[in-house]
Amino acid sequence: MLRVAVLGAGRIGSIHAANVVANTSSKLVAIADPIGDAARNLAERLDCEASLDPIATIERDDIDAVIIGTPTDTHVSLMLHAVSRGKAVLCEKPIDLDIVKVDAAVADINRLGGRVMLAFNRRFDPSAAALRRAIDAGEVGNVHQVIITSRDPGLAPREYLAHSGGIFRDMTIHDFDMARFFLREEPIEVMAFGSRLIDPTLEEFGDFDTVMVQLRTASGKQCHINCSRQAVYGYDQRFEIFGSAGQVLNDNLRSTTIRRWTRSATEVREPLMNFFLERYADAYRLEFEAFAKAVRGNGPMPVTVQDGRQALRLADCALESVLTGHAVKV
Amino acid sequence: MLRVAVLGAGRIGSIHAANVVANTSSKLVAIADPIGDAARNLAERLDCEASLDPIATIERDDIDAVIIGTPTDTHVSLMLHAVSRGKAVLCEKPIDLDIVKVDAAVADINRLGGRVMLAFNRRFDPSAAALRRAIDAGEVGNVHQVIITSRDPGLAPREYLAHSGGIFRDMTIHDFDMARFFLREEPIEVMAFGSRLIDPTLEEFGDFDTVMVQLRTASGKQCHINCSRQAVYGYDQRFEIFGSAGQVLNDNLRSTTIRRWTRSATEVREPLMNFFLERYADAYRLEFEAFAKAVRGNGPMPVTVQDGRQALRLADCALESVLTGHAVKV
Amino acid sequence: MLRVAVLGAGRIGSIHAANVVANTSSKLVAIADPIGDAARNLAERLDCEASLDPIATIERDDIDAVIIGTPTDTHVSLMLHAVSRGKAVLCEKPIDLDIVKVDAAVADINRLGGRVMLAFNRRFDPSAAALRRAIDAGEVGNVHQVIITSRDPGLAPREYLAHSGGIFRDMTIHDFDMARFFLREEPIEVMAFGSRLIDPTLEEFGDFDTVMVQLRTASGKQCHINCSRQAVYGYDQRFEIFGSAGQVLNDNLRSTTIRRWTRSATEVREPLMNFFLERYADAYRLEFEAFAKAVRGNGPMPVTVQDGRQALRLADCALESVLTGHAVKV
Amino acid sequence: MLRVAVLGAGRIGSIHAANVVANTSSKLVAIADPIGDAARNLAERLDCEASLDPIATIERDDIDAVIIGTPTDTHVSLMLHAVSRGKAVLCEKPIDLDIVKVDAAVADINRLGGRVMLAFNRRFDPSAAALRRAIDAGEVGNVHQVIITSRDPGLAPREYLAHSGGIFRDMTIHDFDMARFFLREEPIEVMAFGSRLIDPTLEEFGDFDTVMVQLRTASGKQCHINCSRQAVYGYDQRFEIFGSAGQVLNDNLRSTTIRRWTRSATEVREPLMNFFLERYADAYRLEFEAFAKAVRGNGPMPVTVQDGRQALRLADCALESVLTGHAVKV
Repeated sequence: MLRVAVLGAGRIGSIHAANVVANTSSKLVAIADPIGDAARNLAERLDCEASLDPIATIERDDIDAVIIGTPTDTHVSLMLHAVSRGKAVLCEKPIDLDIVKVDAAVADINRLGGRVMLAFNRRFDPSAAALRRAIDAGEVGNVHQVIITSRDPGLAPREYLAHSGGIFRDMTIHDFDMARFFLREEPIEVMAFGSRLIDPTLEEFGDFDTVMVQLRTASGKQCHINCSRQAVYGYDQRFEIFGSAGQVLNDNLRSTTIRRWTRSATEVREPLMNFFLERYADAYRLEFEAFAKAVRGNGPMPVTVQDGRQALRLADCALESVLTGHAVKV
Repeated sequence: MLRVAVLGAGRIGSIHAANVVANTSSKLVAIADPIGDAARNLAERLDCEASLDPIATIERDDIDAVIIGTPTDTHVSLMLHAVSRGKAVLCEKPIDLDIVKVDAAVADINRLGGRVMLAFNRRFDPSAAALRRAIDAGEVGNVHQVIITSRDPGLAPREYLAHSGGIFRDMTIHDFDMARFFLREEPIEVMAFGSRLIDPTLEEFGDFDTVMVQLRTASGKQCHINCSRQAVYGYDQRFEIFGSAGQVLNDNLRSTTIRRWTRSATEVREPLMNFFLERYADAYRLEFEAFAKAVRGNGPMPVTVQDGRQALRLADCALESVLTGHAVKV
Repeated sequence: MLRVAVLGAGRIGSIHAANVVANTSSKLVAIADPIGDAARNLAERLDCEASLDPIATIERDDIDAVIIGTPTDTHVSLMLHAVSRGKAVLCEKPIDLDIVKVDAAVADINRLGGRVMLAFNRRFDPSAAALRRAIDAGEVGNVHQVIITSRDPGLAPREYLAHSGGIFRDMTIHDFDMARFFLREEPIEVMAFGSRLIDPTLEEFGDFDTVMVQLRTASGKQCHINCSRQAVYGYDQRFEIFGSAGQVLNDNLRSTTIRRWTRSATEVREPLMNFFLERYADAYRLEFEAFAKAVRGNGPMPVTVQDGRQALRLADCALESVLTGHAVKV
Repeated sequence: MLRVAVLGAGRIGSIHAANVVANTSSKLVAIADPIGDAARNLAERLDCEASLDPIATIERDDIDAVIIGTPTDTHVSLMLHAVSRGKAVLCEKPIDLDIVKVDAAVADINRLGGRVMLAFNRRFDPSAAALRRAIDAGEVGNVHQVIITSRDPGLAPREYLAHSGGIFRDMTIHDFDMARFFLREEPIEVMAFGSRLIDPTLEEFGDFDTVMVQLRTASGKQCHINCSRQAVYGYDQRFEIFGSAGQVLNDNLRSTTIRRWTRSATEVREPLMNFFLERYADAYRLEFEAFAKAVRGNGPMPVTVQDGRQALRLADCALESVLTGHAVKV
């Protein structure tokens, strides 16, 4: 029985906590959040202990693993503290917005032999995982091109955007990870465009709402990513992997399969499932299962801090490419 | 070069005439229609001779084959006249509305060794033909169930309906032929329901606008047919063949492949292609090619008068089933 | 907090018990099953009490509601016992295989003012429910035709089939309920065919493996149902509701959305989800939620014993139609 | 009646010639090709005159318009000769591989008031045209991103590739035109990657077989294009236009709509239609209709030499971007 504490009782912490409870070989021991009643309310609902002190929670002897769902700027210190106490860690992305800090953290974790998994949930989506298995099984032959469409249903609140680190580090970072997941090679060059087509005032933060990125690996494999902060029809999440023997794709998810035929249209389907908590509900559950299995079995972490570092590096390169108009070497 | 005359310069005659012109190894010699300017106008457009006399046209020495697209009650006499003069015939369905007259005509044609093909155009639709090839190739194993959806886009004019012979003989007759085409066995029992849900005044003709039929073969294969005189979304033509090894299906056709995604709906497609002249344009073309090929090569007719007779018999059985509430033996 | 006991610890009882646990406003108190360790094992896994005595479990004061998932021939007596003790009941279908016994039970329950819901799970499938909402909202106008495709992935074990009551009462009964759910009128006439195309030895039980049924309501609405005991591509569950203003349809479910494109084929998707426990997992959960809500709120039962009675009657009529070759009046 | 000559009796000339014949208000007068029997054979089949001399054919008094389907390096001189004789011209793409020569030709044509249409056939594809109409009608709101997938079914013969001008000028040039067609703004910046993943020996020509391009307009609209010389599943032609109010997409075409369901897969469809002559048959026909209509009505040319010039310029920019690793200003 894996004994788990969840740090952070917000939206993402709640998801992780519920998945710990639902996992029959794990036990949710405590939830820690320094802000107000968040931990207490969540703990009550999930029948576990609550704390205002993440550090003290990490240090409990009856905790084997911690899940970090706190604000980004606390990730590194909490992660290192947990690692220093021998706890396994599942940490939300990004590790940090500053790659220098991230590199130092990665080095520390490696030195300490820390067991840290980065929470790139999309890798655990059943369809994304099926695409990767198809690639691994050679179904597309050699991968030539990866096309990623990644669009949020609506602009996040201004306050959130102000501290998000920008669209590349906050949103596209998931797609950079998926690019690496499907390419199975490191991108070595990045080209990007950034526009403000939804909210021109994003210029205030030096941010964009509509971006396109191209990646290239040393062997010449190519990846395209398009992101928008606002797809009115819902949360658009599509992957297409094209290679010498064909291609594999996924589809978006909807709440039902109903199709409507009327005088003016046929095959009318619902808008897409909205938003990541619902769309990737299965992925979050399977992500924790993979983490728990790796911790219990002492196996390799399914996603590493190095993966988190690489995705952030690609995000930084994309931003640099937008600003310079050059292809940026990774 | 096959020398062809088209009898009947209406909607269906025009289609056939144009396909003769487009066929590189056939020549449209003449169009005959006793009514007004129809033949002259069509002949002018297609650059051939016009006549008001179908009989004289049949008898021309420079005609090898005739296509009969005249009113139903003239089919038998024209067909027999053409056969008696040694002309090959492609005749529109139905042969006649009276099965006694049909049986006599079939006997006469057989006695004379007549070369007559019945124009069940749907067999030549590329997708329907592909379904049949898949069945023949064993892709569905033993056929167990055939599901046919066949709905017109809108009620025909009252005047047409009054002389149509009723929905089973006029419209479902195509589906009875498709049932036989896909079952590859003769139905031996028919059950049917008929309703007037679109136009209750059809009771005046003893006709229906919404019907369901079930067919059974001696070996137990089953077929369902549903017909409606009015599908507001367009001309609905679907076949599904289910068997021991799986199933094969076709889809409807639309003019374009455009799909629309908006705030309220996704994957919105156009209404279906409308109506049979457009939907089955390829089928009409391929039907004539098959006829021309059979005539030139002296091969067996792809669809026979016996096929036309069987479809009419099933239509009669369906009507009897509606009226008696019994399964009717074919 | 609704206090629930589950009677029957088999496949279907396990599903219901897990849904009670997952429902945040219900409590699973006990599981009862007279056979061996079944109740004990399930109770252990779900952390509740176990019993070998369903009757004693019904009689517990700390039980508000019972879910009956025992063999069919015990349904009536357990249901009536629970009703007589004032317990709410969620009972698996069918009520009984004998309509005389069912009619008596319905009368008894009505006399006692019993609160019994019949477990026609498909009504709670999100897509089926969406179809019904669309009908209720007038999206298809007046319903004219309902087409139901319902195929199991494979023949049940011979032992199961021997006591199933036959395909109409065991399998098609779900489709009869869906027919009533979508038609929103009582069928008054039934026509049916039954064949043995998968296993001819079913003749021994007077049973069939491949059936087609047609239903008609007083106003002329029509419904077609096709069932097969063996669809090699998985559990096929499709509904199509056609009316004066268009149609609405659902699609089957698969585990992922992956599509494969190769040299020989495109858009290749997985086989269908298999079998009802997996395919209708959401439906079972929502069914219990609807039951719990009705019990707690003292509202009307979402599905009644009368619904169960009508579906059985249609099954009996279908069998009679197969045997007599007549349309059978309901 | 528009009197037309076709110059060039190869694959593309044959298509155009057949479309002239099929057009009821045009007349195919002559086909000219200096090489061997090509013109004679084609003219015989289409019942028109043949010539070995394109120049003399242009100069005939009974010719109103010429269609140029000759080798690329003859386009400019034939086009200018025709313009100087007052003939309308439909010229295959590209105008020339050398932008300097193209700019001079455009200037000459403008000076002479020449009536020249460039044959970007894809604009006339019914689905592409429907996408453009949807954009024009505001259905996607402001266009934000255009995604173009454009993959040939197989590598062209080495000899063809050697003189093609490279993938950007030969193949992607169509996609550059579609980008402009859908963006409705001029791209001002180009970023591109080029790889040799199918045939490394293309390095000999400085050519690529797998490319990705990003375009940006002054207002920040973005376009992605991916091309491959070899999609084993067929000729892949997809457009997706995303904007503030939603998106519109097209699908690929197949010869039939058949779908197969087996034990191991469902919804299995055919490979895509192959290759451009078949896939874009409707587009070629409608392209000529649009040309004929513009000539007869003295209306503006639907596609101009300026359009051809811009597409070539984007191709040159893409190549420069690959070679320099910079975004290239148009």
